[in-house]
Amino acid sequence: MNIAETAQKLRAGDRRALARAITLVESTRPQDRAKAADLLATLGTDRQALRIGLSGTPGVGKSTFIEAFGTMLTGQGKRVAVLAVDPSSTRSGGSILGDKTRMDDLARDPHAFIRPSPSQTQLGGVARRTREAIALCEAAGFDVVIIETVGVGQSETAVAEMSDLFLLLLAPAGGDELQGVKRGIMETCDMILVNKADGDLKAQAMRTRADYAGALRLLRKRARDSEGFPKALAVSALERGGIEKAWGEMQALATWRQEQGIWDARRAEQARFWFHEEVRAGLLAHLTADAQVKARLATLEDAVAAGQTPPAAAAQALISALFPAKA
Amino acid sequence: MNIAETAQKLRAGDRRALARAITLVESTRPQDRAKAADLLATLGTDRQALRIGLSGTPGVGKSTFIEAFGTMLTGQGKRVAVLAVDPSSTRSGGSILGDKTRMDDLARDPHAFIRPSPSQTQLGGVARRTREAIALCEAAGFDVVIIETVGVGQSETAVAEMSDLFLLLLAPAGGDELQGVKRGIMETCDMILVNKADGDLKAQAMRTRADYAGALRLLRKRARDSEGFPKALAVSALERGGIEKAWGEMQALATWRQEQGIWDARRAEQARFWFHEEVRAGLLAHLTADAQVKARLATLEDAVAAGQTPPAAAAQALISALFPAKA
Repeated sequence: MNIAETAQKLRAGDRRALARAITLVESTRPQDRAKAADLLATLGTDRQALRIGLSGTPGVGKSTFIEAFGTMLTGQGKRVAVLAVDPSSTRSGGSILGDKTRMDDLARDPHAFIRPSPSQTQLGGVARRTREAIALCEAAGFDVVIIETVGVGQSETAVAEMSDLFLLLLAPAGGDELQGVKRGIMETCDMILVNKADGDLKAQAMRTRADYAGALRLLRKRARDSEGFPKALAVSALERGGIEKAWGEMQALATWRQEQGIWDARRAEQARFWFHEEVRAGLLAHLTADAQVKARLATLEDAVAAGQTPPAAAAQALISALFPAKA
Repeated sequence: MNIAETAQKLRAGDRRALARAITLVESTRPQDRAKAADLLATLGTDRQALRIGLSGTPGVGKSTFIEAFGTMLTGQGKRVAVLAVDPSSTRSGGSILGDKTRMDDLARDPHAFIRPSPSQTQLGGVARRTREAIALCEAAGFDVVIIETVGVGQSETAVAEMSDLFLLLLAPAGGDELQGVKRGIMETCDMILVNKADGDLKAQAMRTRADYAGALRLLRKRARDSEGFPKALAVSALERGGIEKAWGEMQALATWRQEQGIWDARRAEQARFWFHEEVRAGLLAHLTADAQVKARLATLEDAVAAGQTPPAAAAQALISALFPAKA
C-alpha cells in the first residue's frame, strides 16, 4: 500500500481506500502497525466528526435504531459512518451478538459507511483499532461516526471513552423483564433512549422513560451536563418516531459543550487516557519481544499460578531483573 | 514493625496484628511496600479460606445480608472476615456508598473480623490491597473471607477475579424500579440471591427469583458450573430466611469444583491475571520514577491531548526513547 496515495484517496472520500485503511489498522503485524501509524500521521486531525457511542443489550433494537437514525442523518445531507465493537466473550467462548447486524437501507446508502467489528478477543486491541478507525472516518470527511457496542463491562467503558456523546438504548421495562442498566452506566451515559415506543409497548415505554428521567435527576449532576441534561427520551426505531427530537437534543448538548470549552477538554482527557493505555500495553509487548524476558515472565507466572509467589512480589522480581542498574 | 513477630502473632490469630498488617499492605510508601512483600512471603500460602465476593447496588441490603450470613457462619464455629471494596467514584467525585456500613452483631463477634474499605481512588491500588488483605486473613486462619463491593464497573470485575464464589445480591424487581443487572454480570456471577423475601415484598421476591433463574438458564452454560448451577435463590437478610439454604448451595458448588480440579485451576488463572496487572502497573511506575522519563511522558501526553500525535504513535515514541538499543 502506498501511504501517500491511500491518504489522498481517503481524504477525497474514496470508500474502498477507507475500507483498506481500516483493514490496515486492524492488522496486528508489526510492519502493518508501522504503516498504520504512518498513514494516521499523514492524514492529520484537521477534520473532526461527531462521535456517538451507542450501547444496549442484545434485543433492544440497536441495528433498527442506527438504521433509522443514520438514514435520517443522510437524508439531511450528512455523511455517516457506523463502526461496531463486538468483543468476543472470553467467558462464553463465542460472540455475544447473536445475529449479524442488519442495516439494509443504510448499507445501500451512498452517504453511509458501515464497518462490522473485527473479531478479536483482546479488548485493548479492539479499542485501539476502533479509535484508529474513527480517525480514518474523520479524515475521510464523515460528519457523524456511530460506534455501536453491546452493554458488557469493559467494552462499554472503552466506547464511552472514545465518544463525544454516549447513548444508552433500552427496551421498555416490564415486571418480568430484566433491565440492562446499572449505576455505573447511569453515571457514564449522556442520554437514555427508551426504544419500542410503538404499538402495544408504547404506554410502557413512556412509563419507563419517566422512570429513567427521574432516576437520572436523582443520581446525577455533572459539570459536563447542561441544564436539564442528561435526558431520557422515548423513541420508536421501527416507526422512526422521536428520532429527530433525539437528534435535536444531541445537537443542543454538543453545542453547549463546545461553547463551554467542555468539548475540547473532554477530547484531550480521552486522548491522555488512551495514551496511558497504549504505554502500558506497549511496554509489556516491547519487553516480552525479548525471548529471555519472555521466558523469565513465564517462569514467574508459573510460580504465581502455583501459589509459590504473590503476584506483586513476582512483578517486582521481573522489573528488578529488567532494570538491574536502576534497582 | 518486626516482620517475623507480626507474622507469628498473625498466624496465631491475633486480631491487632492482622489489623496492623492490613494497614501495612494498604500503605503506598515504598518502604512499606517492601515490608508488606516481606511479610506476605514470610506468611506463606498454606492456609486457604473460601473467598466469597458479594456485589449489589446500594439499598439491596448487603450489610444486613453479611450480618445474617456471617453470624450464621460464626454460629457454626467458623471464623469470618469481611473486607470491603468501595471505589470512590471518579465521576461523581465522592464515595458511592452512602451510609457507613453497619454490622453491629458481627462487629462484636469474636469469630468475625470486619475491615472497612481503604479510601483510595485508584482501582488498581485498591485491588492489590484487597488481594493482599485476603492473603493476610487466610494466614490468620479465617475460614471464610467475604469481599463486599458495590456493583460498579471495574470494581465488580476486580472482586470477581479475586473470589472463589461471586454472588450477586438483588432486590425484588418492580415495575417502576430499576434493576441493577446487566448481561456481563449475569455471565460472571456464580449465584444470584434475591433479598427482601419477607413481608409485603415476599411474593414479588419469589417472582423475581423465578425470572432470574430462567434468565440464567437461557444465558449460560459454563464449564465451571455443575448441573443445575448457576442458581437464583430468594433470601431474607432481615428475617434470616433462606441463608442456610444459600450456604448449602455455595458449599455444594465449591465441593464439586474442588473435586473437578476447577477450583485450583481457577485460582491459578486468577493469580496469573493479577501478575500481569502488577507487571503493567509496575513497569510504568518504575519508569516514571525517573525524572527525565516522567518529563518526556508529560510532553508526549500534552502533544496527544492537543491532537498533534495519535496515542499509539506517542506511546511508541516513548518506548523507542526508553529502549534505544533494542529499537
